[in-house]
Amino acid sequence: MARPLTLHPDRLFPADPALRSLTRALYATVADVPILSPHGHTDPQWFADNAPFGNATDLLLKPDHYLFRMLYSQGVPLEQLGIGNPDADPRAAWRLLAQRYHLFRGTPSRIWLDWVFAQAFGIQVQLDASTADHYYDHITTALSTDAFRPRALFERYRIEVLATTESPLDTLAHHAAIRTSGWSGRVITAYRPDPVVDPEFEGFADSLARLSQLTGEDALSWDGYLAAHRKRRAFFASMGATSTDHGHPTAATADLSPTAAAALFQRVQRSDVSAGDAELFRAQMLTEMASMSVDDGLVMQIHPGSLRNHNAALFARFGRDRGADIPTPTDYVHALRPLLARHGNNPDLTIILFTLDETAYARELAPLAGHYPALRLGPAWWFHDAPEGMRRFRQQVTETAGFYNTVGFNDDTRAFLSIPARHDVARRIDCGYLAQLVVEHRIEDWEAADLAFELSYGLAKRAYRL
Amino acid sequence: MARPLTLHPDRLFPADPALRSLTRALYATVADVPILSPHGHTDPQWFADNAPFGNATDLLLKPDHYLFRMLYSQGVPLEQLGIGNPDADPRAAWRLLAQRYHLFRGTPSRIWLDWVFAQAFGIQVQLDASTADHYYDHITTALSTDAFRPRALFERYRIEVLATTESPLDTLAHHAAIRTSGWSGRVITAYRPDPVVDPEFEGFADSLARLSQLTGEDALSWDGYLAAHRKRRAFFASMGATSTDHGHPTAATADLSPTAAAALFQRVQRSDVSAGDAELFRAQMLTEMASMSVDDGLVMQIHPGSLRNHNAALFARFGRDRGADIPTPTDYVHALRPLLARHGNNPDLTIILFTLDETAYARELAPLAGHYPALRLGPAWWFHDAPEGMRRFRQQVTETAGFYNTVGFNDDTRAFLSIPARHDVARRIDCGYLAQLVVEHRIEDWEAADLAFELSYGLAKRAYRL
Amino acid sequence: MARPLTLHPDRLFPADPALRSLTRALYATVADVPILSPHGHTDPQWFADNAPFGNATDLLLKPDHYLFRMLYSQGVPLEQLGIGNPDADPRAAWRLLAQRYHLFRGTPSRIWLDWVFAQAFGIQVQLDASTADHYYDHITTALSTDAFRPRALFERYRIEVLATTESPLDTLAHHAAIRTSGWSGRVITAYRPDPVVDPEFEGFADSLARLSQLTGEDALSWDGYLAAHRKRRAFFASMGATSTDHGHPTAATADLSPTAAAALFQRVQRSDVSAGDAELFRAQMLTEMASMSVDDGLVMQIHPGSLRNHNAALFARFGRDRGADIPTPTDYVHALRPLLARHGNNPDLTIILFTLDETAYARELAPLAGHYPALRLGPAWWFHDAPEGMRRFRQQVTETAGFYNTVGFNDDTRAFLSIPARHDVARRIDCGYLAQLVVEHRIEDWEAADLAFELSYGLAKRAYRL
Repeated sequence: MARPLTLHPDRLFPADPALRSLTRALYATVADVPILSPHGHTDPQWFADNAPFGNATDLLLKPDHYLFRMLYSQGVPLEQLGIGNPDADPRAAWRLLAQRYHLFRGTPSRIWLDWVFAQAFGIQVQLDASTADHYYDHITTALSTDAFRPRALFERYRIEVLATTESPLDTLAHHAAIRTSGWSGRVITAYRPDPVVDPEFEGFADSLARLSQLTGEDALSWDGYLAAHRKRRAFFASMGATSTDHGHPTAATADLSPTAAAALFQRVQRSDVSAGDAELFRAQMLTEMASMSVDDGLVMQIHPGSLRNHNAALFARFGRDRGADIPTPTDYVHALRPLLARHGNNPDLTIILFTLDETAYARELAPLAGHYPALRLGPAWWFHDAPEGMRRFRQQVTETAGFYNTVGFNDDTRAFLSIPARHDVARRIDCGYLAQLVVEHRIEDWEAADLAFELSYGLAKRAYRL
Repeated sequence: MARPLTLHPDRLFPADPALRSLTRALYATVADVPILSPHGHTDPQWFADNAPFGNATDLLLKPDHYLFRMLYSQGVPLEQLGIGNPDADPRAAWRLLAQRYHLFRGTPSRIWLDWVFAQAFGIQVQLDASTADHYYDHITTALSTDAFRPRALFERYRIEVLATTESPLDTLAHHAAIRTSGWSGRVITAYRPDPVVDPEFEGFADSLARLSQLTGEDALSWDGYLAAHRKRRAFFASMGATSTDHGHPTAATADLSPTAAAALFQRVQRSDVSAGDAELFRAQMLTEMASMSVDDGLVMQIHPGSLRNHNAALFARFGRDRGADIPTPTDYVHALRPLLARHGNNPDLTIILFTLDETAYARELAPLAGHYPALRLGPAWWFHDAPEGMRRFRQQVTETAGFYNTVGFNDDTRAFLSIPARHDVARRIDCGYLAQLVVEHRIEDWEAADLAFELSYGLAKRAYRL
Repeated sequence: MARPLTLHPDRLFPADPALRSLTRALYATVADVPILSPHGHTDPQWFADNAPFGNATDLLLKPDHYLFRMLYSQGVPLEQLGIGNPDADPRAAWRLLAQRYHLFRGTPSRIWLDWVFAQAFGIQVQLDASTADHYYDHITTALSTDAFRPRALFERYRIEVLATTESPLDTLAHHAAIRTSGWSGRVITAYRPDPVVDPEFEGFADSLARLSQLTGEDALSWDGYLAAHRKRRAFFASMGATSTDHGHPTAATADLSPTAAAALFQRVQRSDVSAGDAELFRAQMLTEMASMSVDDGLVMQIHPGSLRNHNAALFARFGRDRGADIPTPTDYVHALRPLLARHGNNPDLTIILFTLDETAYARELAPLAGHYPALRLGPAWWFHDAPEGMRRFRQQVTETAGFYNTVGFNDDTRAFLSIPARHDVARRIDCGYLAQLVVEHRIEDWEAADLAFELSYGLAKRAYRL
């Protein structure tokens, strides 16, 4: 017999009754605040076309690397989940998830999915082998209705702004379609130049050629390359972008002379580019991007520290973003110094730092953000974007950086319905943290209420210039 | 007047009443589950001979480096504790411990010892200077009775399997004696090849000669050396071993060509072996051992990151394992890549990773184990095998790796009676963690009960192929 | 309307009622214990002259880099706060703080300042823009009264010993004045030789010349330099010093031959000293200082791991100690080995280690201090000297090092009135931690009471030989 599925109203609240009661009161004030999603990886085509999502597997399993990495770790071949295999039976893939749903106990995926099942689809039994087909049919049927089209869901979950992430080579055709469609939803882009900034990115030379073509600049010369960036940034800004995003292996920055930078740019275009030059060029480009942000006002996000494609065999077969990116120890205090020496004291610039290395929270990031006017800290990210990870973020960052050098929540997801699920988790955890500060008499209750709103909405609104 | 000693039934449970009540209920379901001890360093001769243990100091103080390292840190010479000094008076050594028992407040040794005193020996007063002789006499007298012989204690504490650790050069005579003794206790060995794998181990050349002698292979040639390992592994497996264990300074792995590996093996046999070659050889041997595990099914344990014998003067006088091994920062994400490229995607191989560097839990180990089918994570280890350390392990590992990529508890001890004491601590802490997940509505109560059994028994049974 | 300001008697106590009740009882036993402040940076002239402190800004804002670094991070120019700008209006600076007091929510500065406002000055309304002038006037008026002169405050807050920190080049004139003044307050110095030990310190060559002049030794020769140190240490000890303090970039130590050390000393006096030689010299000097401590009994404190003056533009304009020192990853296990090989086994020597890199607590520092007789661990320091940081310190250190290898609390402050505020926070947090150990039945209640006194007073008294 299937077990009932319910979302307890006190989920993720602290156990202590006084803390729980106060958390409940704080959460009630922010539960329905609109969602700002200033950083993520959803597909703008969804909102341009507003076509139905398809089936349960297409919507919930295939875009969610948290799910397939866990299933793979326990011996499920990715092909059977439909990854890199269009012939896979989506219902069979769904059953593989359902049979192994216990693997997700204690993980955020369990929290997010149960929210989606119960809240978005109104399912009342738990997912397991016995309910797999019920789930698949129920969700797939719902997705064929207008209420589950992308724009309807966007509105249902009170999303005020949703940012996607695009390469400078993207024509932003979907964003243009959204803007001319008459639909009022605000879906904006963000400028993610990794493919034309990282000499080790697949197809770097071709990308530079394409950048020249798109901009009419000679993107193979240093001055033309910079001019091309400026043009694309301006175009992205005209399509709503308020930020850039930089996903580098490290947080290294450099501040070379124009002559040295130009010579380096020629070297990195060679097919035998050295690892050192590639790293130095990425480092230099972070400072160049900061300089452009000073001029055009785009907020700069730095997401360093992921060793991409750790599993060479998996990468060869399935390509990027298949769950084999692994965090690495990440230096900030030395790495950021060149950029900060150039722009760190500028209070009109906003650079938002993220980390996959939690050891940097209290040791480097909070001290840096608690000093430099240009710096802010992004929320717990990726592997740490879960209740315990979020708690560690607040506990390790707040005492040195306070709340006002942070920027609210990012969902950073490819899985659309996890957006409201994740924001709900973040608000619950933050309210629990604030309640603890009140019960320990470190802040007053009215301050906690003020901060609950800031963490849910205000800080993101201002930091991302939304 | 002596103070009473009692073991509170709620010890180590969370303070909050709701959490405590649920923890109590969960713990009750696993308190009496048999003990699986798949990794440790007890002496198989105990069970072969079944001789009495001697006196309190021999049983409880001298084999326990947690105790003598703390006493040494506060100025007690090791000689006075009987370390490296057979002439020391064991009663006088015991008094030194008793007088300084307050040093252990807040440490796991206090918890383990009080359990042994109260539960195993039925002592009803606390240990201090005034009760030192009472303790010494009471324990020493008890040890002369049949109820306190090794096999009787093994059975009293429901140990289902106990693994010891032996060098490939060990003839396993004690294990053979156990097997032919008619006693039903399952004491197995584990293959720990450090002395013949680490060129910097004392007596490496002699050990290779002995390996040749034992196996009839030419263990000074690369092919013969590998063949000798295979033979000894097969012999260990025939004596019950289900696992190997590798205690390297780092987690470095390599995957050299056979030609390069053979040349390296010749170089590391020279007396002037370089540190780089020694490290590379250990790295290569981890991959070779993984290859053999693919063939023979032995589970592979990697225990890296201890800088052995930090205190040169102490090492010169007292030798290995005298409490001066210190953890070091340990890289996994780069170090394991060669081995994982070769075998990481093989779901039939099991590699269990341990760490003394907790910063790797959330940053590297959980992401790796949450992806590669061959990887599992061992429990909080050595310095971290204590209530707070165990809590950090669960809090930092579970959200990314879940519970099913972990392998239950290891006691990893030389102190026999600390085995049940340590398993009791682990079960109490794990139940407290599960209770928190339930009270925060992250899992259901029936799932917590399921997981309590898995963490206490099921995961170890399956991961170690017991 | 201004909001009321009160200090809740249960502030910083755990939320759980049983824990809170026990914490309250433990805290009551140590709330009024005299303050030992064995490490800090207050100005001895305050106690020599006993002149009034001036105004609110001079007392509370300008010496407190925690305050101005946060205000600067949010765009307030340091000049407006009076930093490096004697013409700044102190009332206007105070208003800038008051208007932005919400920035400190969740930070220790908020806790310390509210304590000072309410407890020291009896202010009954919260600080905000509307109460800024009331605060400024009230505090400034109070400071003109005898009750708020330095010696009166010293006595009011039951400070038993207060250590300042001086360079070997300091004549200790203020300390001499205090000793001859007839005042009974015990203000002592500590020997902080960084300016004459660090070849990269501003004015190193001039400092050596001055050292020669002060001691009559040829401090430009290695033997004369060491003799000069010995003389100055003896002078400091005669003025009450019981300790030395070393604020190096890393924890590197070395143990060169006298010949090699002498040659190195000549090299580091050259204007083109290499970074490697400078580091090696600092490393060698830690071992030399330890050797001298063996002889003269001064306790040795090592405060490594701060990258000083990270913000070059800020340093150029405002000089040292302006809030732009940032922690770095800090190795101890390898770095300390030379010094420990020489002196680590000496139980008559006391070396107190601090860290800005919390990852070392459980991994390196607790294992080292839990073994070497000469080592003790200083408390949570600087950025980590706050409720959550203190909790992490106890949680990560105690299980391996116990309590008796730690040394009680250090306030380490330049802000005089934060001394009692900080000790109060430390006692509250430590009592909460002890209460948890009792409620989890890990120690007995009478042991917690014993430890509460040790952590508040006894450990510091003994470790610092006060």
